[in-house]
Amino acid sequence: GYAKLDTHRKLRNGAAEVVFCSGKSDDHLVSIFERLWEQDGEVFGTRATEKQFELVRQKLPDIQYDPVSGILKIEKPDKERVGMIAVCTAGTADISVAEEAAQTAEYLGSYVERIYDVGVSGLHRLLSRLDVIQSANCVVAAAGMEGALASVIGGLVDKPVIAVPTSVGYGANMHGISALLTMINSCANGIAVVNIDNGYGAGYMASQINRLGERK
Amino acid sequence: GYAKLDTHRKLRNGAAEVVFCSGKSDDHLVSIFERLWEQDGEVFGTRATEKQFELVRQKLPDIQYDPVSGILKIEKPDKERVGMIAVCTAGTADISVAEEAAQTAEYLGSYVERIYDVGVSGLHRLLSRLDVIQSANCVVAAAGMEGALASVIGGLVDKPVIAVPTSVGYGANMHGISALLTMINSCANGIAVVNIDNGYGAGYMASQINRLGERK
Amino acid sequence: GYAKLDTHRKLRNGAAEVVFCSGKSDDHLVSIFERLWEQDGEVFGTRATEKQFELVRQKLPDIQYDPVSGILKIEKPDKERVGMIAVCTAGTADISVAEEAAQTAEYLGSYVERIYDVGVSGLHRLLSRLDVIQSANCVVAAAGMEGALASVIGGLVDKPVIAVPTSVGYGANMHGISALLTMINSCANGIAVVNIDNGYGAGYMASQINRLGERK
Amino acid sequence: GYAKLDTHRKLRNGAAEVVFCSGKSDDHLVSIFERLWEQDGEVFGTRATEKQFELVRQKLPDIQYDPVSGILKIEKPDKERVGMIAVCTAGTADISVAEEAAQTAEYLGSYVERIYDVGVSGLHRLLSRLDVIQSANCVVAAAGMEGALASVIGGLVDKPVIAVPTSVGYGANMHGISALLTMINSCANGIAVVNIDNGYGAGYMASQINRLGERK
Amino acid sequence: GYAKLDTHRKLRNGAAEVVFCSGKSDDHLVSIFERLWEQDGEVFGTRATEKQFELVRQKLPDIQYDPVSGILKIEKPDKERVGMIAVCTAGTADISVAEEAAQTAEYLGSYVERIYDVGVSGLHRLLSRLDVIQSANCVVAAAGMEGALASVIGGLVDKPVIAVPTSVGYGANMHGISALLTMINSCANGIAVVNIDNGYGAGYMASQINRLGERK
Amino acid sequence: GYAKLDTHRKLRNGAAEVVFCSGKSDDHLVSIFERLWEQDGEVFGTRATEKQFELVRQKLPDIQYDPVSGILKIEKPDKERVGMIAVCTAGTADISVAEEAAQTAEYLGSYVERIYDVGVSGLHRLLSRLDVIQSANCVVAAAGMEGALASVIGGLVDKPVIAVPTSVGYGANMHGISALLTMINSCANGIAVVNIDNGYGAGYMASQINRLGERK
Amino acid sequence: GYAKLDTHRKLRNGAAEVVFCSGKSDDHLVSIFERLWEQDGEVFGTRATEKQFELVRQKLPDIQYDPVSGILKIEKPDKERVGMIAVCTAGTADISVAEEAAQTAEYLGSYVERIYDVGVSGLHRLLSRLDVIQSANCVVAAAGMEGALASVIGGLVDKPVIAVPTSVGYGANMHGISALLTMINSCANGIAVVNIDNGYGAGYMASQINRLGERK
Amino acid sequence: GYAKLDTHRKLRNGAAEVVFCSGKSDDHLVSIFERLWEQDGEVFGTRATEKQFELVRQKLPDIQYDPVSGILKIEKPDKERVGMIAVCTAGTADISVAEEAAQTAEYLGSYVERIYDVGVSGLHRLLSRLDVIQSANCVVAAAGMEGALASVIGGLVDKPVIAVPTSVGYGANMHGISALLTMINSCANGIAVVNIDNGYGAGYMASQINRLGERK
Ligand SMILES: Nc1ncnc2c1ncn2[C@@H]1O[C@H](COP(=O)(O)O)[C@@H](O)[C@H]1O
Ligand SMILES: Nc1ncnc2c1ncn2[C@@H]1O[C@H](COP(=O)(O)O)[C@@H](O)[C@H]1O
Ligand SMILES: Nc1ncnc2c1ncn2[C@@H]1O[C@H](COP(=O)(O)O)[C@@H](O)[C@H]1O
Ligand SMILES: Nc1ncnc2c1ncn2[C@@H]1O[C@H](COP(=O)(O)O)[C@@H](O)[C@H]1O
Ligand SMILES: [Mg+2]
Ligand SMILES: [Mg+2]
Ligand SMILES: [Mg+2]
Ligand SMILES: [Mg+2]
Ligand SMILES: [Mg+2]
Ligand SMILES: [Mg+2]
Ligand SMILES: [Mg+2]
Ligand SMILES: [Mg+2]
Repeated sequence: GYAKLDTHRKLRNGAAEVVFCSGKSDDHLVSIFERLWEQDGEVFGTRATEKQFELVRQKLPDIQYDPVSGILKIEKPDKERVGMIAVCTAGTADISVAEEAAQTAEYLGSYVERIYDVGVSGLHRLLSRLDVIQSANCVVAAAGMEGALASVIGGLVDKPVIAVPTSVGYGANMHGISALLTMINSCANGIAVVNIDNGYGAGYMASQINRLGERK
Repeated sequence: GYAKLDTHRKLRNGAAEVVFCSGKSDDHLVSIFERLWEQDGEVFGTRATEKQFELVRQKLPDIQYDPVSGILKIEKPDKERVGMIAVCTAGTADISVAEEAAQTAEYLGSYVERIYDVGVSGLHRLLSRLDVIQSANCVVAAAGMEGALASVIGGLVDKPVIAVPTSVGYGANMHGISALLTMINSCANGIAVVNIDNGYGAGYMASQINRLGERK
Repeated sequence: GYAKLDTHRKLRNGAAEVVFCSGKSDDHLVSIFERLWEQDGEVFGTRATEKQFELVRQKLPDIQYDPVSGILKIEKPDKERVGMIAVCTAGTADISVAEEAAQTAEYLGSYVERIYDVGVSGLHRLLSRLDVIQSANCVVAAAGMEGALASVIGGLVDKPVIAVPTSVGYGANMHGISALLTMINSCANGIAVVNIDNGYGAGYMASQINRLGERK
Repeated sequence: GYAKLDTHRKLRNGAAEVVFCSGKSDDHLVSIFERLWEQDGEVFGTRATEKQFELVRQKLPDIQYDPVSGILKIEKPDKERVGMIAVCTAGTADISVAEEAAQTAEYLGSYVERIYDVGVSGLHRLLSRLDVIQSANCVVAAAGMEGALASVIGGLVDKPVIAVPTSVGYGANMHGISALLTMINSCANGIAVVNIDNGYGAGYMASQINRLGERK
Repeated sequence: GYAKLDTHRKLRNGAAEVVFCSGKSDDHLVSIFERLWEQDGEVFGTRATEKQFELVRQKLPDIQYDPVSGILKIEKPDKERVGMIAVCTAGTADISVAEEAAQTAEYLGSYVERIYDVGVSGLHRLLSRLDVIQSANCVVAAAGMEGALASVIGGLVDKPVIAVPTSVGYGANMHGISALLTMINSCANGIAVVNIDNGYGAGYMASQINRLGERK
Repeated sequence: GYAKLDTHRKLRNGAAEVVFCSGKSDDHLVSIFERLWEQDGEVFGTRATEKQFELVRQKLPDIQYDPVSGILKIEKPDKERVGMIAVCTAGTADISVAEEAAQTAEYLGSYVERIYDVGVSGLHRLLSRLDVIQSANCVVAAAGMEGALASVIGGLVDKPVIAVPTSVGYGANMHGISALLTMINSCANGIAVVNIDNGYGAGYMASQINRLGERK
Repeated sequence: GYAKLDTHRKLRNGAAEVVFCSGKSDDHLVSIFERLWEQDGEVFGTRATEKQFELVRQKLPDIQYDPVSGILKIEKPDKERVGMIAVCTAGTADISVAEEAAQTAEYLGSYVERIYDVGVSGLHRLLSRLDVIQSANCVVAAAGMEGALASVIGGLVDKPVIAVPTSVGYGANMHGISALLTMINSCANGIAVVNIDNGYGAGYMASQINRLGERK
Repeated sequence: GYAKLDTHRKLRNGAAEVVFCSGKSDDHLVSIFERLWEQDGEVFGTRATEKQFELVRQKLPDIQYDPVSGILKIEKPDKERVGMIAVCTAGTADISVAEEAAQTAEYLGSYVERIYDVGVSGLHRLLSRLDVIQSANCVVAAAGMEGALASVIGGLVDKPVIAVPTSVGYGANMHGISALLTMINSCANGIAVVNIDNGYGAGYMASQINRLGERK
């Protein structure tokens, strides 16, 4: 096939290649999972469907699938997880994106605290969890609709915040563009933004930052 | 001239015509101010320049000009002001828009409390003024950049919030479009939005609501 | 589960939580309806499907479903309804959004008059109902396509108008963005805008305003 | 020079070339005016500045300039004007665009009625002039901000309406894009739209239609 | 029902109400068709589906359906058709929109010539039909993708051109927005634009113009 | 200074570095011109102002400035120019962009024919020059407003067309975005597009193509 | 039928008409394929579905279908292929667009090298194939998401680069608009852009350029 | 005045308030600088003009101004600077934004390496500095036009990259929106984005990350 498996990535970038399952042909997907599993003893894919899970399971019976996040993986047991990342969401509909972030960060060796459904329309929910959030090395804030959560967290913590706009909402939210603009224009310090629904990208970067904070 | 002075508006809409000074020719502007002052004993214009103030003053020496809001007016003394509207801003740069709102509402007979520079990047500033905001009949929230203030206030009060996006910011804020989208997509209840920098419109509607709350 | 039911909202915001049914998992939806019904003796959800109705009915046999608005509710009988809100639409296709607004306002204790299919392409239909509209405490104007109805009503009444752009239309209407822009740029006084198709938000805010006008 | 004067246009299109003065170099402008005047005994330019007027006047002392519309012309006296076009505006700020339309149509041989400042925020102004508008062969409706005037007129007359969005407004009006979208999405019958501020184009097309209605 | 059938439209606007079938409930649709047919002896609907045709046919067996244009109608036989409208398309994919225009104009009493698949990528096709186009009272030009056809025709004829952008195309055509912008910015004289895919609107206005040219 | 002069570019890319003068500080600009002139015996800059010309002339008295295109250069005399590129414009206002393209191509060794002011609103002007255009190796088509010229030329020639949208126009042309979209969506074969007003880029690529056609 | 088969195109444009299969009715499609095959002894269609393949095969049993690119063709055997075009992609998901380009160019007589999955997130993959790319007459660069591949290649080769944005990606990529903007704004020399997913257009233009480089 | 100096920020966020000088009134600006300097013994402002520098210097003679970045500051001597941030730019025009980032990070206690003018149109410039970039704790990548630099760096380093789109460019770059979209859609791992031209935000976040990597 044409695809070039980037097996040097682990050396170059400090992390093995993660599989973006969406839109891959069946044969192609199965062969990538097999090759990565053989090479690394573990394998991690995002945006997988139930059907893709069934398919890969025929070759790799230990594969695990989480329908909320769409993550399909075999992970080495007893991985050490260092530091702490707080992954927060505004509503329950943002949890699928947040889980993509959280599980990516965990796979890459970070410890994660989940703080979900703490959006700004009921601020007391966020304030009551502030101590956990403030003790993280890095915060991921996933929110759709107006996406104000990232700004509010950014003003309350002194650690980097990775903001993930989600496509949750309707009308003038334009599938997440509105939340993206909110976050990019944030007046709070220490916020940077990834693509709409890009939980993977947020989890990856948060883990890079978190591990930086834990190296000796 | 072609312009039709809408002298029946006070009967029909409960408020005299307000002059939008921006772009009016000198002669046109002066004659409108004179006619409205003769008719009502008071007159109120928005978006006036220093130069327009000098011009109108030659005919109406009692005219007053506020360079922050651009308001040019003669107001009857000892007007009664009923109820209470809280006019809030995220930053100091939003104050010119907020003052347009506040002074419009005052001109229309409402009592106004100003709560400025309480944006979400330093939430304690807002929380320390919450009692005043919560005791208003209606809140005006003016914010630029990411415009998150309206959502946060909307979640903390049970009165209608008029959100005014301002053009304060740069880059992807696109002269206020970003703040407008944030506010339109707000997940909080009881928020409605007026045009970017439209302090007049916010103050007008807030006053309609406030007076409704005070009628007997 | 992660979701935090906001049971203090009634105290804080003066209204119980309303359920946004769209996209909720079956289990999650049913459990929220049960909990809210137990707590308040009534429950109200928006954007429900026929299938969600069947599901909830298995646990709450008294639940009622309106396929036009997508509202799913048990409402206490003989609720007092105060004041008056006029809910207007431009065409018949806007009625589903208008009903979301009207029934929300009714659930929150407001009396509602429906004035449907009175768009500006046949102005006499609107003018013949003007007396009702003018006697309301607050008007909701729902319109798609070019959304001109809100401006025309705004010019004819002296009460606040909540404008709801709808996604009705095609082509350059861009799923409601055009109507939203029309309403945000309205030259009439006393208009503020909520998100595209956000009947709930309009009804909520209209009810806040209407009750303000009726308190003693 | 490179420019190719289109002297056959009068034969082909039934109207002599009109000069778009904006941005033309001084020499280029003066020479075009001279050539067209020599050829046709009249000449007509749009979007001219005061300075361009002074310049051309040195060569063509009979040239006339209207600072409101920016039209610079020598017109044959006692031109017959047939039929009737109603040129309407929403506000006084739209008059410069309307005059470009009106004077273009007059130059091309049409009779024009001006009905200015009849926007939808005060509908009685429009209704009181309805008889004139309804007796036209064609209507031009120029409006900025939300541009609702075209829809309202379209619903009240049975003749073609040429809608001209103007750049009048601020904020989310985006220099006329909002009014353009309103007009393109109009639910009224018999409306077509030209570019923002394109009074010339509206006047040209209205005159084509009007003369069609008057030919024998 | 809430819908207000606008039976006075024929008097006011010179044409009976046309039914926009898309999205109407079955009952509603059938009852409108019956009422209009009883009242006028003919009835005309746009954007109907095959299924809606079957439905209406049960009540009105003489109803006719054209799957290309989606038009559903009973038309009086031997209607006189006056003047001439040239309806042109750039490609074959634009024909469904063009037929909506052509058949609307025919229903309203205009004679129509169809000149299809004459887009600018093969200019000789257009030039070979120029005589017919130039002899029309009014031209409808329907084109998707880059929509250049309207400009080219506008430069070649001295009659009004109604430009209809279609949603034909892909990628940066953004469902017709690109063709709409092309047409709105046309440098040719005598072009005005209706909404994307709005064949009905183009046919209606073309017929207004054409009949104006034929009245005595 | 920080800037890294890319002196290997001639080897790598087959052309010396061209200076983008706009926004460069005075010192920086003069030193780049001196260094390039010393190295290559010629130097070529785009988007220069009159003031920059005066500045550079103090160091390089042979420098030449063309105020139409903004090109500032010293060119070796008697350069051979191979093949032929036709550079076309829709109007006279597009000539500054076209000259940037033409002079860039000439500097890079191509022969250029200029065919200006042949836009689609008067098609006979283009058709009368078709023989020259058809004999080119490559065509550059510069047009603003609706930008239809590129499509029309693309349909008439069998050589590659480089389309350059220009910012000429107003209103919904959005500073050239409309012309860009027209050209990107062209239904003609053999068209590719560069950035708005990017005459340099068009001339560079046209010259690459033309020289390819002339190599032996 | 209305469609005008452009049989003179081969003479005029040097290439027979290519069929855009998407959206064509079954009868229409089959008859076009038959007519072109009879006329030219070969026929080439893009964007065909499996179902269209089955249909055409009933009449033309030698027809071949490639499900990756959607190309449906009968090609003369032993066609000579001249010169060389390098067709590159950033990822494996861009291959369907790249194959449309490659096979179009091959059908038109060009030799093609495929260099797939060499995107900028792993630059060594691209650098290791640089010799092939640099020896091409013309490069096609297909990329979605951020589309940076075209710029990087443009900086490394001295031949024209045709950039094809693809709709691969999600969120703020807006179905390819983001990649299109990246490519249009490229700071590298010698890049021009075609529509999103327009592999056909890129292959056509690349072949025009390549054959120019090979003619004697 | 209304402004609330956020003197608790140093405690809460680990950094003193930085002054955004743009648009501040003279009095307001001078008083903020005096108060912060008194409180902290140092003070740091961004986006200051030459004129604001002169003004502040009258009160604080030790103030220093950098016209490239617009930074106005008094900084404590001999501040320790830990770790390392690589600040990269694509071109020389991006340096003003990069300096805002670099000097902000230095003020906040980070060591910075500047690697300027290494954009993708001449990749060897970047590759020759790769060792420095790869040894940083965090990279800031500032680029305008197509903004591809961030993706290329992201693929070559295993540390977090803060991407800053700049407004450098013209045409379809839309004042930086294009570069912003490129960066948000990056296919490389470990990239997050701040607002257009927001060097301050990038430097702040980079410093947070860098100091995290250096704490013991
Ligand atoms: N700042 C403002 N923003 C929007 N509308 C305004 C403002 N000030 C006044 N207006 C409205 O503009 C009308 C006057 O506009 P004009 O017809 O141009 O004189 C007033 O009667 C108000 O309804
Ligand atoms: N139709 C609606 N549109 C917008 N917001 C709604 C709607 N219906 C309910 N909501 C809001 O959504 C909240 C419930 O969201 P959740 O907690 O995710 O179930 C309610 O408290 C309302 O604030
Ligand atoms: N295809 C169409 N596009 C736009 N407007 C239409 C179309 N067909 C009918 N209409 C208009 O829509 C009105 C009917 O809308 P409705 O009351 O929803 O049936 C008609 O009177 C026409 O003015
Ligand atoms: N160049 C800049 N861009 C964005 N935000 C900035 C910039 N400079 C300072 N800030 C932020 O703006 C705040 C000060 O805003 P202000 O109160 O208006 O002076 C600072 O505390 C920073 O968080
Ligand atoms: Mg912070
Ligand atoms: Mg609230
Ligand atoms: Mg009103
Ligand atoms: Mg009408
Ligand atoms: Mg014409
Ligand atoms: Mg061609
Ligand atoms: Mg190159
Ligand atoms: Mg990386």
